[in-house]
Amino acid sequence: MNIKHEIIKCLTVISALCLFFIGSTTAQLFENSQPATTNISKTTCPCVLENLSVVFQVKAPEAKKVQIDLGKMYDMDKDDQGIWSVNTNPQVPGFHYYSLVIDGVKVADPASESFYGMGRMASSIEIPEKGVDFYEIKDVPHGTISSKYYFSKVTNGWRRLFVYTPPGYDTNSKEKYPVVYIQHGGGEDERGWAEQGKTDIILDNLIAEGKANKMIIVMANGNVSVGRGGGGYSSAGMAAFKEEMSSNIIPFIDKNYCTLTEVKNRALCGLSMGGGQSFYVGLESLDYFGSIGIFSSGIFGGINNPSGKEFDAEKEIPGLLSKSESFNQKLKLFYISVGEQDPRFEYTKKAVKKFQYSGLKVEFASFPGDHEWQVWRKSLYDFASKVFKY
Amino acid sequence: MNIKHEIIKCLTVISALCLFFIGSTTAQLFENSQPATTNISKTTCPCVLENLSVVFQVKAPEAKKVQIDLGKMYDMDKDDQGIWSVNTNPQVPGFHYYSLVIDGVKVADPASESFYGMGRMASSIEIPEKGVDFYEIKDVPHGTISSKYYFSKVTNGWRRLFVYTPPGYDTNSKEKYPVVYIQHGGGEDERGWAEQGKTDIILDNLIAEGKANKMIIVMANGNVSVGRGGGGYSSAGMAAFKEEMSSNIIPFIDKNYCTLTEVKNRALCGLSMGGGQSFYVGLESLDYFGSIGIFSSGIFGGINNPSGKEFDAEKEIPGLLSKSESFNQKLKLFYISVGEQDPRFEYTKKAVKKFQYSGLKVEFASFPGDHEWQVWRKSLYDFASKVFKY
Repeated sequence: MNIKHEIIKCLTVISALCLFFIGSTTAQLFENSQPATTNISKTTCPCVLENLSVVFQVKAPEAKKVQIDLGKMYDMDKDDQGIWSVNTNPQVPGFHYYSLVIDGVKVADPASESFYGMGRMASSIEIPEKGVDFYEIKDVPHGTISSKYYFSKVTNGWRRLFVYTPPGYDTNSKEKYPVVYIQHGGGEDERGWAEQGKTDIILDNLIAEGKANKMIIVMANGNVSVGRGGGGYSSAGMAAFKEEMSSNIIPFIDKNYCTLTEVKNRALCGLSMGGGQSFYVGLESLDYFGSIGIFSSGIFGGINNPSGKEFDAEKEIPGLLSKSESFNQKLKLFYISVGEQDPRFEYTKKAVKKFQYSGLKVEFASFPGDHEWQVWRKSLYDFASKVFKY
Repeated sequence: MNIKHEIIKCLTVISALCLFFIGSTTAQLFENSQPATTNISKTTCPCVLENLSVVFQVKAPEAKKVQIDLGKMYDMDKDDQGIWSVNTNPQVPGFHYYSLVIDGVKVADPASESFYGMGRMASSIEIPEKGVDFYEIKDVPHGTISSKYYFSKVTNGWRRLFVYTPPGYDTNSKEKYPVVYIQHGGGEDERGWAEQGKTDIILDNLIAEGKANKMIIVMANGNVSVGRGGGGYSSAGMAAFKEEMSSNIIPFIDKNYCTLTEVKNRALCGLSMGGGQSFYVGLESLDYFGSIGIFSSGIFGGINNPSGKEFDAEKEIPGLLSKSESFNQKLKLFYISVGEQDPRFEYTKKAVKKFQYSGLKVEFASFPGDHEWQVWRKSLYDFASKVFKY
């Protein structure tokens, strides 16, 4: 036996020790369950049971109280090894942010991948939805997500954005593509649609099935006024986002990608805060955007509108109701969606009804689910299959 | 005042509340300090003082004991608001993984960005190095990092890799480029060189200064045998990595990118575990790779070699010493680097001396620092400025 094998043996032992160490905050996989696809390790919990309840486990012998915050707060129980665990209620399918709460401090679960959401790197758990696989990677031609830096004159600094280009983009240098600018929600950034949203996989699948045209999708950071932490909802944030789009992002994309640059070939859409940005900035910029998508926005009322005052579309965007025909002529697609368990659901339906009553053409869709990524993945699927079809 | 402004006012209040909530686990910025560039928020701690000590803070009124694990363990002190803080010793410049330890549980600090290292999503802190800016984004032409899926016949599943393409790659469809395959360390994955390593920024700067040729850099996941958690060091892991490279990754890259495919235009390098892979798989695959780089590998002895047996290069790679001239003819660059405070330093120097004594051409470099990313960033800078120069 040569030293290579000796060393490899030693390193194998070290690797095993490392794995033990790495796994030391989590315990073994729970019986009759599947580890979540969002886990770091595919052999430990969190694990999803057949009834879609989830077993969480964490080793914390010295902690007084350990909980899981999954919207609802679950107290965990400690065994004699110091491993805390809990089996939750059955969960709604989809992608849920959650926190491990150790003696009152909300942190990311070391057993899970982290995603930028809730204004920090947060754990998430993917609960499978039976019969739904449009966001699962399949044996179809795959596009690319590219990471690009551009200089923003608004923030006076370098900023990152992600760009999805469809299959064949790299090899066909003559084709030009329409562009969707898609925005994340509050407490998220440009990573939202690339990671949580699975934009690339959804588009690859849609294009392979012939349900969507090939398109470029740009995922920029909508927190323009005050950096990552927030600010997108404020007046200053809205104005800064508008300027960022028109002065920096769109020119950068049109310069560096093979884009179709007519207004009809450019769309703006977004979720929650990004839906608010799409409504105000989009409708005020119909010389830039020919299609607009608003997913789960709070502007119509509900949880983001504690004033209780009714949404007055005509005041918000003058002419939207009284001159609806001129908006219809400019807008190739005006799309609004919301989750059916979202507190924004009834307010959104009411606003859409008013829009339609005034003659404004609106494509409305609702999906089962609360204010979460499963609704937004379905919104993207639906929006992408309808946009640029003329 | 219209409802838009009312709503925006309300939303601003909500945003402010959200920010307060987001920031509730961290406190205000420490006096006379700079927030670390690795922070989520640029207005809270961790913050770096002039002497390079770091103030960490976390709000945890109910915790019994809170610590920071930064290699050395620091106990934090609680004030009457429940905010724990500590000012560490002055830190070595560079990028350090660290953990927040709440009542004995090691977790990521919610105030920091997370990076996949130590087998989980881990916090890191960037300590600036005076006069060193080769990994800082500058006003130079920028390349792109693309995320790609390929199907692996070795793991029988879809895997992700990142590809750096240099400035001008997209617009000049006729030029072909040499390729560096660069590997991460144990407990890391394909994200290591893209995020911690700042490969794109380092190469953009090197190319702009005319110090490196334009090249493609491929960052694949080297944990082939057992998925993300580890396995790269084992015999099975090494063999699986070799097959993954030759059967899946290299053909995928040569098919999808404008590559120069002669052996001399292909390099393999890596850090720590990836350095071991570069040594064994690289030297056994000189029909694939014309240049090899080994950064901070434990194969020569030290912390990864508890057997204490001396490294015998001739046994590991037959002919490496006795037929060094044949290796010299095949290898355009055989590069070895290590940190000067790394326990592997003396062993590496000793091995290099033996290599050179036997007539094997080795480019050796050492940099101040332990087994950390600052040494690896400098290794990439050095390696990239030397490779493909003939």
